[in-house]
Amino acid sequence: MAVGKGDLGVLHPVPGITMAAVSAGIKKPGRLDCVVFSLGDSASVAGSFTRNAFCAAPVTLCRQHLAITSPHYFVINTGNANAGTGNAGMENARRVCHEVAELKSLPINSILPFSTGVIGEQLPVEKITDVLPEALAQLQEDNWTDCAKGIMTTDTRPKAASVQIEINGKTVTITGIAKGAGMIKPNMATMLAFIFTDAKIESQQLQAMLDIAVNKSFNRITVDSDTSTNDSCMLVASGASEVQIDENNAEFMAALNTVFVGLAHGLVRDAEGATKFVTISVEDGANQEECLQLAYTVAESPLVKTALFASDPNWGRILAATGRAGIEALDIGKVAIYLDDVCIVQDGAVASSYTEAAGQEVMEQEEITIRITLGRGSYSETVWTSDLSHEYVKINAEYRT
Amino acid sequence: MAVGKGDLGVLHPVPGITMAAVSAGIKKPGRLDCVVFSLGDSASVAGSFTRNAFCAAPVTLCRQHLAITSPHYFVINTGNANAGTGNAGMENARRVCHEVAELKSLPINSILPFSTGVIGEQLPVEKITDVLPEALAQLQEDNWTDCAKGIMTTDTRPKAASVQIEINGKTVTITGIAKGAGMIKPNMATMLAFIFTDAKIESQQLQAMLDIAVNKSFNRITVDSDTSTNDSCMLVASGASEVQIDENNAEFMAALNTVFVGLAHGLVRDAEGATKFVTISVEDGANQEECLQLAYTVAESPLVKTALFASDPNWGRILAATGRAGIEALDIGKVAIYLDDVCIVQDGAVASSYTEAAGQEVMEQEEITIRITLGRGSYSETVWTSDLSHEYVKINAEYRT
Repeated sequence: MAVGKGDLGVLHPVPGITMAAVSAGIKKPGRLDCVVFSLGDSASVAGSFTRNAFCAAPVTLCRQHLAITSPHYFVINTGNANAGTGNAGMENARRVCHEVAELKSLPINSILPFSTGVIGEQLPVEKITDVLPEALAQLQEDNWTDCAKGIMTTDTRPKAASVQIEINGKTVTITGIAKGAGMIKPNMATMLAFIFTDAKIESQQLQAMLDIAVNKSFNRITVDSDTSTNDSCMLVASGASEVQIDENNAEFMAALNTVFVGLAHGLVRDAEGATKFVTISVEDGANQEECLQLAYTVAESPLVKTALFASDPNWGRILAATGRAGIEALDIGKVAIYLDDVCIVQDGAVASSYTEAAGQEVMEQEEITIRITLGRGSYSETVWTSDLSHEYVKINAEYRT
Repeated sequence: MAVGKGDLGVLHPVPGITMAAVSAGIKKPGRLDCVVFSLGDSASVAGSFTRNAFCAAPVTLCRQHLAITSPHYFVINTGNANAGTGNAGMENARRVCHEVAELKSLPINSILPFSTGVIGEQLPVEKITDVLPEALAQLQEDNWTDCAKGIMTTDTRPKAASVQIEINGKTVTITGIAKGAGMIKPNMATMLAFIFTDAKIESQQLQAMLDIAVNKSFNRITVDSDTSTNDSCMLVASGASEVQIDENNAEFMAALNTVFVGLAHGLVRDAEGATKFVTISVEDGANQEECLQLAYTVAESPLVKTALFASDPNWGRILAATGRAGIEALDIGKVAIYLDDVCIVQDGAVASSYTEAAGQEVMEQEEITIRITLGRGSYSETVWTSDLSHEYVKINAEYRT
């Protein structure tokens, strides 16, 4: 299941960046499960990683390598997360980097490894190193769809987004791919996302821009409230366009936001078992924290999520979640709740204009906005989520079989 | 579905307390859905209520009445929560109290109302007031099972617990009933629980004893992290035994704890769709808060819960939940995780002694303990939860149909 059509649209190549997707047979033979990106010699790279204390070996290694030198290659495998694997896991991640470094005569620190898949099993290193020469031989400018497929796990479809803008008469491109369908409540970034631009951006600036973009995209989605051990989001600026950009360029930041939000929405639309794409918008809060807290409480309520799955306008569950979100001294008499434009709760109780038929009509849509206004300030926040279906339980009960 | 046999055992009458369960046909004709308790003239009563800001009308009225006078009657209905119902809801709750007050020539404040069921629909008051004379005529000392049935909603079986102890050569009885299977993360008390004793206990003492008992029972369980709008837990001391008790009586407190924990476990065992009863124990934490926070994070992780449902020893999900629980400066090298006595994670990675077969064996049990040791202090906490099954989604998707 997935919400919406999921067309990838036109995915523009990013000058300076090449890529390949091959099959290493990590979990299933014949499946694209190993992706390599070549970043060229002068790219700036920024990274945003999981805050999970049990972060995976490749995440630890990425952080170490990024602190030492500028990366030249990304190597990504699916089918195995290399998390909870201790010292052996670190050594295995290093061996993957070492192989590419040898083949390309580069220092090992210029290779960044990424893994996603089952936690707690050792990485089958040989399967990966065996196919790296093939991957490096196949690097090309325009292979986004295969690479987006090559990083999928329980995803039912690839996710990618691409935007071109004109700056000073020159075309600047931003294209990215992402994966993730479960264990999604990114706390910095999501499972894996790789976004590339040919703009020329200084490293520290790039990191600031990544942090801003992540915070309004991957850090505003939740499928099941579980933050992964492997979350990594990388932003690469190849500089090939020769257009110098910094975070004060509003047009570029807007384009970047479009790509990030597009990818983040792509994850939610393809969330495990998803039949609905739901926007939770909290308005008129006293501060940003309480708006976020309430939005996540509603977004993660299993009862709200099963009502969404059933297309049942059982708004009492939204009201109950609002009431238990821990908002200090909430005056329920000022709270209103809307399903799209239908007002269901006003002044803290069912709205006099509300009819079950009106609520039902909205709930039957594939895309729904739940809007909660608190009447106690001027802050607002939005998060996106999916419903909780039979399929979610099935996928996650049978994940390792 | 439910875990374990659910035998109620012997339920001792509590001298001074009488009860009746009748059918008002609130949601389904013929079903026991209206329960009345008579507390006599000299009972002490303590109450613990939901912290949900959108608390139901009967909860608000209970608090008001308790502040004014000592209660004589409890009137409980299922099938309708009378929550999110505004002023009309308050008026309806008052009308139910007024009817009993009239019939028994008592002030309205001496009647406490309780409701549970669908949120957001107005209470069908006449259906309830019509059967109150019948209920009052049927009051008897020993009707626990019917009353436990009469407060059920999605529960598949009644919950009750009973203990007798000897104090100063006299028998003191504690018997209670509870209901609840979904929207269970009590934050003070659970959906509805009524516990009675014939001990003689001064009101303020009784409230302190209730707070202690609730905190180690109903406040330590979660089915789906949703705190209800109607949570109410009442402790009544009829005084009929003439045995004076205060909270320093360790024997009585232990017996009280047995009844409370028994009822709380009963809710989890009968949680919506439950096939497992799971104890999450966090040990060697730096403080109580972090132990609780971690225990709840694991208990509420949909991925841990679906793995439990599938009997899949996918312990990586427990590790991932531990890592994302937000414990300040967690040294994962000191963390160990056990399934019953099987050590799965030691020093932050998979234990060398661990085998999938050993993990599998534990996961196939109906009752499982997940034990996490943090190696950073001397605090510990325990919470109880259930798994997340197909049946949970089915029950909650079809709840209003």
